[in-house]
Amino acid sequence: MRRIRFRDADGEVRYGELTDDGTVRADPTRDGRVTDEVGTFDVEGVDVLAPCEPSKIVCVGLNYADHAAERGSEVPDRPLLFVKTPNTVTSHGSTVELLPGKEQIEYEAELGVVIGQRCRNVDAADAEEVVAGYTCVNDISNRDDQRVETNWVRGKSFDDAAPIGPAIAAPEDVPGDAAVRCRLNGELRQDSSRDQFIFDVPELIEEITTYMTLEEGDVISTGTPEGVGPLSDGDTVEVEIEGVGTLENRVRIP
Amino acid sequence: MRRIRFRDADGEVRYGELTDDGTVRADPTRDGRVTDEVGTFDVEGVDVLAPCEPSKIVCVGLNYADHAAERGSEVPDRPLLFVKTPNTVTSHGSTVELLPGKEQIEYEAELGVVIGQRCRNVDAADAEEVVAGYTCVNDISNRDDQRVETNWVRGKSFDDAAPIGPAIAAPEDVPGDAAVRCRLNGELRQDSSRDQFIFDVPELIEEITTYMTLEEGDVISTGTPEGVGPLSDGDTVEVEIEGVGTLENRVRIP
Repeated sequence: MRRIRFRDADGEVRYGELTDDGTVRADPTRDGRVTDEVGTFDVEGVDVLAPCEPSKIVCVGLNYADHAAERGSEVPDRPLLFVKTPNTVTSHGSTVELLPGKEQIEYEAELGVVIGQRCRNVDAADAEEVVAGYTCVNDISNRDDQRVETNWVRGKSFDDAAPIGPAIAAPEDVPGDAAVRCRLNGELRQDSSRDQFIFDVPELIEEITTYMTLEEGDVISTGTPEGVGPLSDGDTVEVEIEGVGTLENRVRIP
Repeated sequence: MRRIRFRDADGEVRYGELTDDGTVRADPTRDGRVTDEVGTFDVEGVDVLAPCEPSKIVCVGLNYADHAAERGSEVPDRPLLFVKTPNTVTSHGSTVELLPGKEQIEYEAELGVVIGQRCRNVDAADAEEVVAGYTCVNDISNRDDQRVETNWVRGKSFDDAAPIGPAIAAPEDVPGDAAVRCRLNGELRQDSSRDQFIFDVPELIEEITTYMTLEEGDVISTGTPEGVGPLSDGDTVEVEIEGVGTLENRVRIP
């Protein structure tokens, strides 16, 4: 099952199930109030929002052996972590407006783990219990600054640097070897699979929650495979995760 | 004027003005609803909350020339930025429960700038308009991990790593050379002044908002002066900013 969050024609935020025929079966609530307007919507006709509202996105660097090799980095002995702040979040279908005057801003297709409940000190063996599902994340990265700063704040936490969506897929609908792909203007640029992870999802949840409480709606972005590359004004970039669907954004660089 | 946020005896979140005699004149609203119970409370008798709810804390490293020298670092040519995530926030008067098994977790007294309105691309000349006021921040830092990780996530964003408070002082009540002090178990450990900043508040706001939108309630923590040192189980740590007051916390290390 795939859940989306969207704004209806009256401007109210709703949740619903995205079906395989491209329609949305809305929950019988609007802003928490029950209504008779359950309704079915064409997904193309609604304003799709990011499927969750993370208080933080905890990101993992170099979590695919092939990407670590591409960047000339050694495989780390524990997850390389960094964060993206909430101002980075944008939705499927949005035009991402990136920083002007940079030489190299790149896409990174990633599997996002959406947390389902507040948690701390979760053992890997119990980690499934705190996972609401999976989504697509584009960890857009400004290499100009990332290369020269100690912590990747300018490099990773600029506005619109984290398109998320379109849906949250239930864990059972995303296979253990789910494909993780990126297309730039229709051309396949990244094509790997979740079974290439150096640190798997339960290990990541255990490590992160040793240090911090995760909240419902927080996202762990699990790293990107080889094939990252630059974005230009006017590009269309798609992140596809098998079982989730495709997160598509247009790029604008002023 | 100093504003605090607190929970009243009925468990409702309220705002009020902290007066010099240690009483709180509460706003005539409770959870947004107007009430007749304006009331005056003894600040010692109410549950003081963090004075704001930041979606992110943007922190500045090495912003005092004396502290940069202490750590053997060169003075940076632009602000060294890192972030603390919302799970780090805790209030004046709380017992901070720190990570077990670490060798070196340290206090860092800092002046916090509380943002008053959503903003992006703010010129330094206009920066005063977006400042709600100033508060005290203790940027508690886990050096064991900070020393060995690329981005300071385990080192800076663990739970309870950002006591904030007790109040937000209006900008005009915090002098340009306001003292920034830390006391550990009553003993003065850090004693500097805001006029020692390498990058002043308007410069920080311009630089940060070049990259990211700041929200109402977000905090910029402006760096710490020399004199940082380790915390132990049972310690009492105080951050004092002239014009704001004193943020006091007990330390527990399980």
